[in-house]
Amino acid sequence: MSRSKALLAEIVGSVAGGLGSMQEILEAELQDPSAAVADMLDHVARFRGKQLRGALVLLVGEATGKTSEEHPKVAAIVEMIHLATLVHDDILDGAEVRRRVACVNQRWNNQVAVLLGDYLYSRAFALSTELSSGLCSSLLSRTTKQICVGEIDQSTLRYDFEMTQERYEGVCGAKTASLFAAACELGARYPGGSEETGELMRSVGWNMGLGFQIIDDYLDLTGSEEIAGKTVGVDVEDGKVTLPVLHVYSEASDAVRERIREIYTQPELENRADELRQAVDLEAGLKYARKRANELIENALSSMAVLPESQARSSIESIGEFFLERNW
Amino acid sequence: MSRSKALLAEIVGSVAGGLGSMQEILEAELQDPSAAVADMLDHVARFRGKQLRGALVLLVGEATGKTSEEHPKVAAIVEMIHLATLVHDDILDGAEVRRRVACVNQRWNNQVAVLLGDYLYSRAFALSTELSSGLCSSLLSRTTKQICVGEIDQSTLRYDFEMTQERYEGVCGAKTASLFAAACELGARYPGGSEETGELMRSVGWNMGLGFQIIDDYLDLTGSEEIAGKTVGVDVEDGKVTLPVLHVYSEASDAVRERIREIYTQPELENRADELRQAVDLEAGLKYARKRANELIENALSSMAVLPESQARSSIESIGEFFLERNW
Repeated sequence: MSRSKALLAEIVGSVAGGLGSMQEILEAELQDPSAAVADMLDHVARFRGKQLRGALVLLVGEATGKTSEEHPKVAAIVEMIHLATLVHDDILDGAEVRRRVACVNQRWNNQVAVLLGDYLYSRAFALSTELSSGLCSSLLSRTTKQICVGEIDQSTLRYDFEMTQERYEGVCGAKTASLFAAACELGARYPGGSEETGELMRSVGWNMGLGFQIIDDYLDLTGSEEIAGKTVGVDVEDGKVTLPVLHVYSEASDAVRERIREIYTQPELENRADELRQAVDLEAGLKYARKRANELIENALSSMAVLPESQARSSIESIGEFFLERNW
Repeated sequence: MSRSKALLAEIVGSVAGGLGSMQEILEAELQDPSAAVADMLDHVARFRGKQLRGALVLLVGEATGKTSEEHPKVAAIVEMIHLATLVHDDILDGAEVRRRVACVNQRWNNQVAVLLGDYLYSRAFALSTELSSGLCSSLLSRTTKQICVGEIDQSTLRYDFEMTQERYEGVCGAKTASLFAAACELGARYPGGSEETGELMRSVGWNMGLGFQIIDDYLDLTGSEEIAGKTVGVDVEDGKVTLPVLHVYSEASDAVRERIREIYTQPELENRADELRQAVDLEAGLKYARKRANELIENALSSMAVLPESQARSSIESIGEFFLERNW
């Protein structure tokens, strides 16, 4: 077993009971009397993945001593929102549909994907209104809004090589870290945990989530499709300027800068990520990004030192390590 | 002034104060610190339209004697959800993008439209969590789910000429009547109104909304683009079998049935709605649909007779009349 797989197994093991309950809730929520909807939900269930956001709700609950019967439900709601964002991420435009036709043909059309994502969002919100406190509804609706703003901002920042690192991290924070932060805050506060511990765990989740996204962007430039199980090099294709490229660009000569812009924008260019790797020495940028992700995650984990030692706390640390060690 | 415009003016006049407050809330909610998001919200604000769902929240509140300070907020939330559904309705597939290029070019790309709709949904839910009771969050999240199921079912029922009228009305109910029903129920119950009055007004809203959708489908077959301010004949283009066609098909000979199916499905056919009007005598189907809409709306209005007479009750009746008399 690889190191990162061993880490994952340890994480899951430490809240196996809660994850089992979360899974049962998710299975019940991913069903519908409409045959058409049920069929699609069945397909979507396969995207469930590692469910680390849900696991964080449970682990933070344990680590802060506040685990309640409602934690698995909160975890399921967080995972449903994540699932909805994944479904909506798959909505493509005309040009991209053509470019990624093999990928899209296996799914339904855009209109149905939009509706299915909306269904998951509204079902998650409906479930959250059944909880004993309004905190989950309130926090997750604001988080979903923040995710949308992050994604919209990201879309308008395509091909922007002059963007500051702060802006890049602001977008990554809104689109990705915010849900990790909400998961950790809810784990700590639901129900009845102190605001102070909620704030601490929110900040832990934010930094971990930001580190996660930076590594995600890193892997899109370096990863193997075989290992990742998804297309890599998509960011360059989509005009997304991620931290490694941003760093290399900021240090580059005018000629190299022009070449980078050309690789991003020249029409009909095949495999832009390969072109980029050949034309530019990305190594310094990749190292820089990895260092930043390390710093963020180490920060997050060290700020948890105020919590009593526990298996759950150590599992959260393992999630941080997993984020840094994963190659998919 | 046309009869239907006079009706609209009367409706608006009777809850002008509440509508003004709703408008202020909407304006505040359609702003965002992100310049990109603000720009898009500004564009979306133009779709606000007649805001009859929001008006119903206020009017039902008045008519059932339960108007509270929170009614304009509830009305704004209902309108934001309606706005989100409109934005997501505009998501098109590759083929349709090509077919309706003039329409789409004036907007943003699909990905951004998805995010903007999600933003509106989540902002509406976030606002609902600020209210004094959880009823609005709970009812509207379930209603949004129902709208999605209706739209997904509708999409799978395209080109289904054997569909029963019950099934057609079930889909119209889920995708359209459900939000009118929720608006009326919330108006009656928010906060502290009786469940019984809530149920009565829910049923009034459902029947009015169903009548509204049947007329909407009717106008898509008969309307003038100039008056409607939107493309008509879209349903035939999209394969949607609406009540007038369903009725004509059920009464038609095998040869006519085959011709109808051909007009819906033959590739590259220009203006299918015109072809349909020329090939088939739609009149009986249109009359049948109008009769059904009349019946539903009259039912709704007569069941309101148990409420005390009031200007608000009479304005709700005017909304019903407007639904039947409008030609756009």
